[in-house]
Amino acid sequence: MIIVLKPEVTEPQIEHVIQRVESLGLRAHLSRGTYRTIIGVIGDESKLRVAPLEAIPGVASVVPILPPYKLASNEAHPEPSVVEVAGVKIGGGWLAMIAGPCAIESAERMDAIAAAVKKAGANLLRGGAFKPRTSPYAYQGMGEDGLKILRDTGRKHALPVVTEVMDPRRVELVDQYTDMFQIGARNMQNFTLLTEVGQTRKPVLLKRGLSATVKDLLMSAEYILSEGNSQVVLCERGVKGFDPIARNLFDVAAVPATKSLSHLPIIVDPSHATGRPDLIPPCALAGVAAGADGVHIEVHNCPEEALSDGPQALLPEQYAAIARQIRQLAALLGKKISSVNSGNQ
Amino acid sequence: MIIVLKPEVTEPQIEHVIQRVESLGLRAHLSRGTYRTIIGVIGDESKLRVAPLEAIPGVASVVPILPPYKLASNEAHPEPSVVEVAGVKIGGGWLAMIAGPCAIESAERMDAIAAAVKKAGANLLRGGAFKPRTSPYAYQGMGEDGLKILRDTGRKHALPVVTEVMDPRRVELVDQYTDMFQIGARNMQNFTLLTEVGQTRKPVLLKRGLSATVKDLLMSAEYILSEGNSQVVLCERGVKGFDPIARNLFDVAAVPATKSLSHLPIIVDPSHATGRPDLIPPCALAGVAAGADGVHIEVHNCPEEALSDGPQALLPEQYAAIARQIRQLAALLGKKISSVNSGNQ
Amino acid sequence: MIIVLKPEVTEPQIEHVIQRVESLGLRAHLSRGTYRTIIGVIGDESKLRVAPLEAIPGVASVVPILPPYKLASNEAHPEPSVVEVAGVKIGGGWLAMIAGPCAIESAERMDAIAAAVKKAGANLLRGGAFKPRTSPYAYQGMGEDGLKILRDTGRKHALPVVTEVMDPRRVELVDQYTDMFQIGARNMQNFTLLTEVGQTRKPVLLKRGLSATVKDLLMSAEYILSEGNSQVVLCERGVKGFDPIARNLFDVAAVPATKSLSHLPIIVDPSHATGRPDLIPPCALAGVAAGADGVHIEVHNCPEEALSDGPQALLPEQYAAIARQIRQLAALLGKKISSVNSGNQ
Amino acid sequence: MIIVLKPEVTEPQIEHVIQRVESLGLRAHLSRGTYRTIIGVIGDESKLRVAPLEAIPGVASVVPILPPYKLASNEAHPEPSVVEVAGVKIGGGWLAMIAGPCAIESAERMDAIAAAVKKAGANLLRGGAFKPRTSPYAYQGMGEDGLKILRDTGRKHALPVVTEVMDPRRVELVDQYTDMFQIGARNMQNFTLLTEVGQTRKPVLLKRGLSATVKDLLMSAEYILSEGNSQVVLCERGVKGFDPIARNLFDVAAVPATKSLSHLPIIVDPSHATGRPDLIPPCALAGVAAGADGVHIEVHNCPEEALSDGPQALLPEQYAAIARQIRQLAALLGKKISSVNSGNQ
Repeated sequence: MIIVLKPEVTEPQIEHVIQRVESLGLRAHLSRGTYRTIIGVIGDESKLRVAPLEAIPGVASVVPILPPYKLASNEAHPEPSVVEVAGVKIGGGWLAMIAGPCAIESAERMDAIAAAVKKAGANLLRGGAFKPRTSPYAYQGMGEDGLKILRDTGRKHALPVVTEVMDPRRVELVDQYTDMFQIGARNMQNFTLLTEVGQTRKPVLLKRGLSATVKDLLMSAEYILSEGNSQVVLCERGVKGFDPIARNLFDVAAVPATKSLSHLPIIVDPSHATGRPDLIPPCALAGVAAGADGVHIEVHNCPEEALSDGPQALLPEQYAAIARQIRQLAALLGKKISSVNSGNQ
Repeated sequence: MIIVLKPEVTEPQIEHVIQRVESLGLRAHLSRGTYRTIIGVIGDESKLRVAPLEAIPGVASVVPILPPYKLASNEAHPEPSVVEVAGVKIGGGWLAMIAGPCAIESAERMDAIAAAVKKAGANLLRGGAFKPRTSPYAYQGMGEDGLKILRDTGRKHALPVVTEVMDPRRVELVDQYTDMFQIGARNMQNFTLLTEVGQTRKPVLLKRGLSATVKDLLMSAEYILSEGNSQVVLCERGVKGFDPIARNLFDVAAVPATKSLSHLPIIVDPSHATGRPDLIPPCALAGVAAGADGVHIEVHNCPEEALSDGPQALLPEQYAAIARQIRQLAALLGKKISSVNSGNQ
Repeated sequence: MIIVLKPEVTEPQIEHVIQRVESLGLRAHLSRGTYRTIIGVIGDESKLRVAPLEAIPGVASVVPILPPYKLASNEAHPEPSVVEVAGVKIGGGWLAMIAGPCAIESAERMDAIAAAVKKAGANLLRGGAFKPRTSPYAYQGMGEDGLKILRDTGRKHALPVVTEVMDPRRVELVDQYTDMFQIGARNMQNFTLLTEVGQTRKPVLLKRGLSATVKDLLMSAEYILSEGNSQVVLCERGVKGFDPIARNLFDVAAVPATKSLSHLPIIVDPSHATGRPDLIPPCALAGVAAGADGVHIEVHNCPEEALSDGPQALLPEQYAAIARQIRQLAALLGKKISSVNSGNQ
Repeated sequence: MIIVLKPEVTEPQIEHVIQRVESLGLRAHLSRGTYRTIIGVIGDESKLRVAPLEAIPGVASVVPILPPYKLASNEAHPEPSVVEVAGVKIGGGWLAMIAGPCAIESAERMDAIAAAVKKAGANLLRGGAFKPRTSPYAYQGMGEDGLKILRDTGRKHALPVVTEVMDPRRVELVDQYTDMFQIGARNMQNFTLLTEVGQTRKPVLLKRGLSATVKDLLMSAEYILSEGNSQVVLCERGVKGFDPIARNLFDVAAVPATKSLSHLPIIVDPSHATGRPDLIPPCALAGVAAGADGVHIEVHNCPEEALSDGPQALLPEQYAAIARQIRQLAALLGKKISSVNSGNQ
């Protein structure tokens, strides 16, 4: 950590800063420049993070050197992590193909969609039983009945399942039915919920918040990791943008940027990132080309009747077409795709 | 609601859209233009909101006319609401002066800060017992011990208190100690939590999320209102911006923009909006000048020892100076400030 | 165009709006709903665009139906355009490979870089002679001497050249040396300059501004097209974002979103979009996967000595590696790449 | 400047960096920490700015200490500057009241508007003769005829005038008619134009670009200042935001943030910042409360007939009302307002 002092800093102020650094068991290294004086801090930087040095008179700014996320960081774990969801590998060269409807609506519809995406090559089934809806008057999901449908449908088609949990009081319930938890973008900094899923030992799909930096996302992953659950998969699903042409702004560079800092797998969700069916296929390919460890796409067999987010779902035949292209691109890039029936590949 | 059709729409597609509209008990009004054909929908628009018309072939876009927030809307309640927190009025010409430390750290410190802000003219005391921290390694708050300190300090100084609740399982606990709940920016779309505080009958301070539009904020308020709790105060505390010069981007225009749509009071929080002590006083005045119903400022008597957000707190003497200016400006604008001792004013 | 009236609109106000519409030679079609009354306007919508209807009392909002860019629009020109730069085709299935240093620094360096990128498969050479620098104290470019070096180097290596023009007074000068004009992001709405290059008959590479929507970009293209120059190639090079992890936010979805509205080719510039050499290759591939008609990459043989933007340049060997991957991906997607020597392909 | 080295940096790489620093005539000060090694650079930091140190292998990041804008900086000029426009003072406690139509449309209309705003207390008259319009089909302004109308109207009503210049070839022409140049937001980084107005000795109103940071704005001011023209007034007029509720996002905190770095006056333009007549008065007051040195408001006597930006103009009576409130607030804050007739106040 480097402490930059103000031009008008006084000697007693410098003394005060140094004493404060040393009182924390660290060493201070003073360096007087032509224009500015700085103090380098030597020792365990994390001790300083709780101490608000910027508030000390004479301090202009404090520049941290080490990342505040330790367990999520590449420095702690130089090899890419592989997260395994009931036999489906994600990361470290393994590409996940997650598909399914936004919301679980009925056993029949779920069965039809699952059959279609399985045939098209998906290896993980998604579906929401508890829906975070902007409006209290919008469809809120089927609850536990939906979870049962999801689990049964997944078993029938040999597809592990992933579903969102929103309420810390329901983590235990959802845990009984799902193979992977999803934490939605709006809950990325719901630290209560992160702590709760961190105490399970089940994989977590953590979606990036709409105004979260990559480092914020890693800090939220750190909440889960620091509870002892190392099975975290990140997901880029668009950030808030200024252009109304798409629902959100798909930040494809976040995929390699995250990998430059962390060992955790990161997938892309072009459905939520764009909100436009015509933009989903090109953005799915872009995500894979940029190095994503998986693609999450919403599929519905009758979007105009969907109870949630119909307009952004692909039809099963559209999904089959893009899944084919993703597989070709994955082959070109040397990526493998887990198949559940045969164990792997 | 207006349904705009694509240039290449076919007659059967138009028929299909009209049937769908009529199947919902609404009337469709077809209008063929030189370039485009549109369908006006007559009847209760909210029925259409659950039906994803954009997904129907031939439909180009759907333009809503009525706001999706009813209870929060000006149309439902044309007069500004006044929310009363244990005798302190907010809204409808009454200005709230909320002050206190970011986190409750000890009874002694809380007492000193409360005495100072009371003397300076604050009429509501804030302090966090449960802290939403980006890092799992940062100080997380004193919990119930902190709540007790807050309540006792508030009683001693005749200041009603407001504190954040993050976990729906703790709403009942926090309810026993506080006069007003705070929902933090990161939890603005934690719908589970909104529903829970909506079921109490205690005032709620709802902070705007960093990437929330004004309408998103009103939709979140609607969650609370629709549970039967009408005591909601909104808070503008900065949105995510691109300029690193301040922590967030203080959206002062959101104050009058919200008032143009809603009867709910809205206050400003220049501490979180800027994160810079030198910007807090000018932004506090700007908020009041723009019509805010209150000002929320973090105050600490030793920022460099604060366990949370020290660098953005004002010293008690700085708070006293800005409180004086706020009172002068309030007088100029004809605003009143509740004083708890004397009941009102 | 649809004119939505306010709930409290009066009959005389409705009359006034209708008269105004009819005074412009258009027909008004009144439709009274349960909650709102609207007026559909039938006829040439562009006549209405100059008339500020929102300012008329009783009008709530005006919803346009037709795009304001005509020549750039897909509706005017349903087939993708192919722009040809001295034999190198861009668009309609042809992929441009543009490479070169940020600034032209000397004939020797330019020659070495050109030889390297030509060998790696580039088919257009870039280099700046006039540099738009944020600081007046930064290197501003070699001027006409640089233009000569660029032209001569391009001829020697059979690479058509593209260079930025910033000053309308220098369009004629630059025209003598270059095969394609570049308009930089900061000048995307320098309408004086757009008009000037619109009056030449030379291809223009128009970069998207940092806060420009896709529609703003098309409106700027329209300035060039409406002067009679139809040879416009668009370029996505990142928009302003909130995450300091990269210089800008690479908006890869803008590629298919632009194609959904316009026939103009659009390329990507991952160098400026990210500002980080390690993010350039994955973002280049992402752009091609999303359907871009070309890739623009800065290459320098000694980035630490570069006079401008050194840190974001690839080394020649890094460029060769990514160019190889781009060709493989282009082959997978069925794209062709012009080679100047053999005329095409 | 501080150079932070990578954890895996080698000794020869450290040597290389030190040599490079010393080759520029600076001193390097090596400091080895527990985790990271840093090099402090002592001497004239501006020499290093042209050298891209981030591109040297082993370098993780480079942290500048001094601002790159020298002439605009507070450090160079600790007292606030007062810019005088034909007798009207701006800055250093003097508040400018700039008003007028978006575009000059006719001598009669200009005269009526000027008479009204003069009566309401405006002390500078604005009006555009050359309009930067997003669409090539929109009204582009009256040109030199408009300039004549503006000058004559200003003289008649004893109001100095300000008008936009867009084309560097017309700086000389505009100079003959105006008392102050305006550089629009879209041209904030049109360095050619900045250099040109920098070579005149007439005050310049420099508007902040929609994606410009405060430091970018100061760097653009530096272009003008470094040409020898010290008469620069900055203007906050909204940045690009994500909420469609207003045209732009009024960044009121930019006013005190700019003042913390620079001696230059800064005014606010709530008309362009919000684009909504109902938001202009509260945002005008907010700007003054935050410390702005002036308020720029568009006024039109018949917005529905305005040829440009009609919907965002205030009516003369609305302007008179807000001007009255601004004067009251200015008095409260101890600000003075120049009146041209009497010289000063």
